[in-house]
Amino acid sequence: MRLALAQFNPVVGDLSGNGRRILAACLEAAAASADLVVTPELSLWGYPPRDLLLLPARLAEQQQALDQLASDLAAQAPQLAVLVGLAEPCPDRRHPELHNAVALVEGGHWRVVARKQLLPSYDVFDERRYFRPAAEASPVLELERGGRRWRLGITICEDLWVEEELLEQRLSGPDPIAALQPLQLDLLLNLSASPYGLGKLALRQQLAGRAATRLGCPVVYVNQVGGNDELVFDGASFVVRPGVIPSGEGLEGTGLQRAATAMTPAPAVVCQLPCSRSAVGLWDAGVLPLPGQAPSGDPEAIPLQSGDEQQAPPAELEQLLRALVLGVRDYASKCGFRRALLGLSGGIDSALVAVIAVAALGPEAVQALLMPSPWSSAGSIDDATALAGRLGLATHTVPIAALMSGFDEALTPALGEPPSGLAAENLQSRIRGTLLMAMANQQGQLLLSTGNKSELAVGYCTLYGDMNGGLAVIGDVYKSRVFELCAWIDSPSAAACRQELGLPPSGPLVGEAIRLKPPSAELRPDQRDSDSLPDYAVLDPLLQALVEQRRSPEELVRQGMDRAVAERVMGLLRRAEFKRRQAPPVLKVSGRSFGSGWRMPIAAA
Amino acid sequence: MRLALAQFNPVVGDLSGNGRRILAACLEAAAASADLVVTPELSLWGYPPRDLLLLPARLAEQQQALDQLASDLAAQAPQLAVLVGLAEPCPDRRHPELHNAVALVEGGHWRVVARKQLLPSYDVFDERRYFRPAAEASPVLELERGGRRWRLGITICEDLWVEEELLEQRLSGPDPIAALQPLQLDLLLNLSASPYGLGKLALRQQLAGRAATRLGCPVVYVNQVGGNDELVFDGASFVVRPGVIPSGEGLEGTGLQRAATAMTPAPAVVCQLPCSRSAVGLWDAGVLPLPGQAPSGDPEAIPLQSGDEQQAPPAELEQLLRALVLGVRDYASKCGFRRALLGLSGGIDSALVAVIAVAALGPEAVQALLMPSPWSSAGSIDDATALAGRLGLATHTVPIAALMSGFDEALTPALGEPPSGLAAENLQSRIRGTLLMAMANQQGQLLLSTGNKSELAVGYCTLYGDMNGGLAVIGDVYKSRVFELCAWIDSPSAAACRQELGLPPSGPLVGEAIRLKPPSAELRPDQRDSDSLPDYAVLDPLLQALVEQRRSPEELVRQGMDRAVAERVMGLLRRAEFKRRQAPPVLKVSGRSFGSGWRMPIAAA
Repeated sequence: MRLALAQFNPVVGDLSGNGRRILAACLEAAAASADLVVTPELSLWGYPPRDLLLLPARLAEQQQALDQLASDLAAQAPQLAVLVGLAEPCPDRRHPELHNAVALVEGGHWRVVARKQLLPSYDVFDERRYFRPAAEASPVLELERGGRRWRLGITICEDLWVEEELLEQRLSGPDPIAALQPLQLDLLLNLSASPYGLGKLALRQQLAGRAATRLGCPVVYVNQVGGNDELVFDGASFVVRPGVIPSGEGLEGTGLQRAATAMTPAPAVVCQLPCSRSAVGLWDAGVLPLPGQAPSGDPEAIPLQSGDEQQAPPAELEQLLRALVLGVRDYASKCGFRRALLGLSGGIDSALVAVIAVAALGPEAVQALLMPSPWSSAGSIDDATALAGRLGLATHTVPIAALMSGFDEALTPALGEPPSGLAAENLQSRIRGTLLMAMANQQGQLLLSTGNKSELAVGYCTLYGDMNGGLAVIGDVYKSRVFELCAWIDSPSAAACRQELGLPPSGPLVGEAIRLKPPSAELRPDQRDSDSLPDYAVLDPLLQALVEQRRSPEELVRQGMDRAVAERVMGLLRRAEFKRRQAPPVLKVSGRSFGSGWRMPIAAA
Repeated sequence: MRLALAQFNPVVGDLSGNGRRILAACLEAAAASADLVVTPELSLWGYPPRDLLLLPARLAEQQQALDQLASDLAAQAPQLAVLVGLAEPCPDRRHPELHNAVALVEGGHWRVVARKQLLPSYDVFDERRYFRPAAEASPVLELERGGRRWRLGITICEDLWVEEELLEQRLSGPDPIAALQPLQLDLLLNLSASPYGLGKLALRQQLAGRAATRLGCPVVYVNQVGGNDELVFDGASFVVRPGVIPSGEGLEGTGLQRAATAMTPAPAVVCQLPCSRSAVGLWDAGVLPLPGQAPSGDPEAIPLQSGDEQQAPPAELEQLLRALVLGVRDYASKCGFRRALLGLSGGIDSALVAVIAVAALGPEAVQALLMPSPWSSAGSIDDATALAGRLGLATHTVPIAALMSGFDEALTPALGEPPSGLAAENLQSRIRGTLLMAMANQQGQLLLSTGNKSELAVGYCTLYGDMNGGLAVIGDVYKSRVFELCAWIDSPSAAACRQELGLPPSGPLVGEAIRLKPPSAELRPDQRDSDSLPDYAVLDPLLQALVEQRRSPEELVRQGMDRAVAERVMGLLRRAEFKRRQAPPVLKVSGRSFGSGWRMPIAAA
């Protein structure tokens, strides 16, 4: 049986359009003689559909889209079957009223063949808001293909995330894989919508490898690709067979230490689709012997073949860059923008966002605004201009000194003096934010916000100023990681990736002048970030402990952290909540970003 | 047995502080010879604690706060017992790891006596993110008081929301009241944290009345009071006994039509605490006969007494005003602000917010900024100034014409022309927003945002401009309701309420000049809202159907709505999602506000 793994890029809520995208993948698969197409979780909706799932009219549209797909497929590829993800209304209409389900579409009809058992309701996931868990594992799906009957198990995303020692997150229900163990499956299929995160691909393969070993059959994992608001889905679908080689490769330094130490059998990946782009991968399923057993007597068993798309996944920093580029490209295109604007300060954050924007949209579609003040260093303007030259960006320069004086004059009668201190610093930032929005509004551009995660955590940013924008591109990337990523981008090892992303392939891109200067907001003379904040080498690990690991200052002090620093940073983190509440969507690339998975009260102790 | 209903105002996450607040209520109750104090749901945390519940250090603090409360209570009021709401860690630490529970604190110790069964995971509620549902109803709590043994049932908030024909929302589990029916309870207690909403108090009393009738005993309902970010809890705790009088009174025009038609037995409220302020109410419990039966033979049965605090709840518009005032007062005080600032345009929205701010914080703590442009009408300045005079507000005037020219000059070289159209309108709004933030930053004030729900729905507002502020005070009040509320405020029937809120009790407050002028943003000459939008008499009911009732334009067209209008407004609603994502917290007063209960994707079809 030839399977097609269809990692396509849906538009959330576009039920008929996603039906057409699935049909297109099916026709591509049919041309390559595939028997069964597997699509991602909730593939008709695009993940996450959020409260669109609560609209009765959308459920009616889903029904139409499914009927249309079934009839189109029967007309255009009558031999082919496809598994699609859908929201299945429950007949009793208790709350919640839906199952997260999978339908088999073939022969002009469709029917539900699987329901999700484990519904994630942590971090960014709210599935208990919409879905009711399936009470039991879905029955085996039997399919006649290539002259034999295949016994397929079907799971949906979280149903595979059951290895507690690999996960930070504990289970919320029974282990769906355990229920499948007695069923003598030939294959387990998993339809997923798993957002990108550092080290996540290795973890997914570990989980699938464990399931393959427990079930004695290959696991076919199909993941969504595309950026949907804050979430970037990296695809990277794969097939694993039961594995035996011990290895911890690929998880070093990713924060998944527990996973790394727990890994014994490394997954045997026999088919790997690309990261962060749409693809249909083919894989010919055979029947595998259980480890240590002789091959089964099935005469139809064929040797495993690797898919045409197979390639090793890229290294960690490249995955990160590709995910950010995809996030920007899709947010822009799905919101109807062809062009983007950003403020270029000469600092490393806006430089990185400029690189990402150019890779996402092309240099001709990105414009940069330089807005020097009396406190801007000459170097900053030169550095920004040189960067724009390397990237092929159009720039304009709008000095803000006159507007600063204008606001001082306007406000002095009311305040009795011109704004000073933080109010004056914020004012500069808001003048720039207002200039950027005026440019973006007049020219129909998407404004990209350039702040990093360290700033957003401690509030070292101005609401309605530098926070302005439709998307916070690197708002989930700590400053230390910004430095690392830019160093990698400038290194020879990034050449192939840069070329593929349409960036100049050789020579420094960000450049040492930008990468090596001390960070400064340049909102007063000779200001340095280090005047107000601990060094990023101290701050970032501390923030990671407080944010990602939910540690308390008290715990960190017991482990040797300076009490004054720990308490001060915790205070900054808590007090910046009101700013983050009004931040643009932040592209999520870590285990815990300041977005829909971070639900902290503002007016609280 | 004398019960004390303690509706106090907790600070979210302030575990030790809330423990002290509970102790203070207990001492007040002990002075009045109470036997048992009942506090709201999760009273140690304040509701909703959100992701603070995920921090292990906070759970350790909770333990300390409970121990402290138990020992303080034993020392200072040894005869008294108190029921407090807590998050109980489960020993197995599967996900989720907590129960939403109630502890009985008495004699220097505490123990968990009830766990919540129905966990709301809809609208603003995320309880399945944090809590595991109790598998069964909590056992009867037996308490010896006044020489007899009382059989008490304990439920937590949603556990009482089980009458499907009264509710839009269907049940997510078994009916907890049914399980209590065979248990021969003397009283049912309900610890709640139920946010204010139009018509909500009547609905709560209906639900409690049904439970009282089904159980044949009084229901004691204790609700949290106070504003916590977007949610305002109105207290209004009460006791009902089984009722028999049919009535639909109190639900007209509240949108709870299903409830109104379904109501048969009206609840017999025998104790009513005030709306939107802290109070400890006393009620002496007797043993009631079941309806239609002879009184039980219990010789200790005493007649029901109404509590000292009993009063009829205020009319709907007064409840709304009091809830908004409480929301502003608490957001300011819990965020550490004593003073607020707002822009006063001469329009009705900012006028209403000024009234609310003065009622919340006092006129001396509120400052208004008038920021006329060349397009401002003379009337607007006069109207704003006169309003400020009536309210006793300090005002400053900062004309923006020079800043408008300054931005035009700054931007013309980059754009090739000055900003025009919407870009120019937004620029005016952003100049004002920047002035307001500079004033607020320099003076340490909370900036209040003045936009209404109609604007926020269709995007008739400027991000980083008039949307600026820490709190969107009337962002969940449609424009038509703004007019209604202001008309009521100006009417003689509001006199007592105005006096109690510290507002001038007589004469027009908003004033006819402001109430009767045609709405205009005054961002271009002779602009009217009606140039861009349908009349509010058409727009607001349409928005209510799309937002609150989740109807589709297609459905509304079938019912006679003009197709072009319905589709245009739906398009505006969808396209404004990016603005709402960056809006300040909106005080929620309706069944569905643009806040944490509205989770729509941005980049979607």
